[in-house]
Amino acid sequence: MGKDYLKVRVPATSANLGAGFDVFGIALENPADIIEVEKSDKTTITVSGRDSQFVPVDPKKNTAGIVASLLDKPVKINIQRGIPLSSGLGSSAAPAAGVAFALNEMFSLGLSKEELVRIAAQGEKAASGAAHADNVAPAIYGGFVIVHKDRIISLYPENIGIVAVHPEIIVSTRAARAILPRKLTLADISFNTGNAASMVVGMMKSDIKLIGESMENRVIEEVRSKLIKGYRQVKKSALDSGASGVTISGSGPTMIAVCSMNERENIAKAMKQAFSDNHIRSEAFITTIGNGAKIIES
Amino acid sequence: MGKDYLKVRVPATSANLGAGFDVFGIALENPADIIEVEKSDKTTITVSGRDSQFVPVDPKKNTAGIVASLLDKPVKINIQRGIPLSSGLGSSAAPAAGVAFALNEMFSLGLSKEELVRIAAQGEKAASGAAHADNVAPAIYGGFVIVHKDRIISLYPENIGIVAVHPEIIVSTRAARAILPRKLTLADISFNTGNAASMVVGMMKSDIKLIGESMENRVIEEVRSKLIKGYRQVKKSALDSGASGVTISGSGPTMIAVCSMNERENIAKAMKQAFSDNHIRSEAFITTIGNGAKIIES
Repeated sequence: MGKDYLKVRVPATSANLGAGFDVFGIALENPADIIEVEKSDKTTITVSGRDSQFVPVDPKKNTAGIVASLLDKPVKINIQRGIPLSSGLGSSAAPAAGVAFALNEMFSLGLSKEELVRIAAQGEKAASGAAHADNVAPAIYGGFVIVHKDRIISLYPENIGIVAVHPEIIVSTRAARAILPRKLTLADISFNTGNAASMVVGMMKSDIKLIGESMENRVIEEVRSKLIKGYRQVKKSALDSGASGVTISGSGPTMIAVCSMNERENIAKAMKQAFSDNHIRSEAFITTIGNGAKIIES
Repeated sequence: MGKDYLKVRVPATSANLGAGFDVFGIALENPADIIEVEKSDKTTITVSGRDSQFVPVDPKKNTAGIVASLLDKPVKINIQRGIPLSSGLGSSAAPAAGVAFALNEMFSLGLSKEELVRIAAQGEKAASGAAHADNVAPAIYGGFVIVHKDRIISLYPENIGIVAVHPEIIVSTRAARAILPRKLTLADISFNTGNAASMVVGMMKSDIKLIGESMENRVIEEVRSKLIKGYRQVKKSALDSGASGVTISGSGPTMIAVCSMNERENIAKAMKQAFSDNHIRSEAFITTIGNGAKIIES
């Protein structure tokens, strides 16, 4: 009946993919957070790894601690952070998803993936203010997810090259939401609907070209890209290097490009160079659409 | 090198399916128009069958005649109409699509389906003012289509029960467009995007429940349904009888329900009764998602 200790790996995620605002998300093979949980009489949190100095260790303010509290399971949590903070790569979703996943295993709670997503989303809401499940859902399911109503649909495209380039720019999720237009025209909506529909076909067929070409989003990309210095040049550099599509990951500032697996290195180099030309330092993750949370030690 | 005479069958179509405004369309197995073309030195049109008295026989004003002119192929065209006029079932698209398809065969023009859609859409535009290909595309491809940018994606779900009920109400496409809101909120857009994405998965998996539940559209359905007397009761009657979803076909007034094949008769009866309770006469088509234009005699 359960374990006293578990170590899980939970991946970075990228929400929206252009056309699927608040609806689409993908799990990235890397970067990832490593989360250890151990049975205890009281929830405590320790954090190490990248940006750890900025992560609250108070269980009431940390998404992972909130999830433990929601499940009423006190545990020692140790988070080894690999996902950059405030990057648009689901850094607040990953610990929430990882702890929900780990506690379900550890205490044999028998919760479905959908229930885990709901709980993790509540944990994230307490931290970020918005309970969108478009990061926690792919962090748990892996693959490509459609988060809609109370249903999550997951698809598992293969060999989709992803380059995620994280520039050293601060974009707060709240600010990125506040800047959004409150309404769109019908023509823009039909365009985005067509892209969203095409994206799903692309994901079902593992069609890199169709996925990439479906990433364009009218209005939202235009508005949010203004928060990312060099956006146009970086996008152009990726497309010129063979990417089939480029967009903002979540609310940014990370930009993601879709391409064939063997074009990733070149595209990463070009994108980093374009940021550099704009006097912005950046880090590239060469990755693919990957798995959700999994146990790596128990 | 071609034939001197061809008879083609071209199906009714239903655009939008709720979530896919100006993007989605399906071909219905029935009703259909039967179109005969015969080589001639001058394009002439004769029309028989339902509502034929309202169809212009002047080749410059008839979608079929315009297509013949666009292809520069004079032919005698005879249209036996089976699709009710101004019903929201693609009655102006069918002859345009049918003649484009027939002339491509007759004169061995070697045009792709995409090119035929483009030509048929031009023919329809001359008649209806709007060049949306969401009816001509399924009329040519059959199945479920996503019409987006210059690309048409077609999927072929099987055993999807469709009930199309056409009430005796006049709704002009122009009026149904004019009544539309010019903008939607982001929350409504995400909802519709989620439904559009789910619809595509439903169509790929032939999942009747998912297709039906993805048919809901915020704002557009609400506004357009006001042009259809009894809409709420008819929708409720279909859902109560087991339909998984109900929406307006194109710009209406036909309402379509999605259900399992063996529930169609009951649902048709319930929908007709609900219209009747509102003192509206109606006709039901018991059908399924079917094929596109095809040659039936040559």
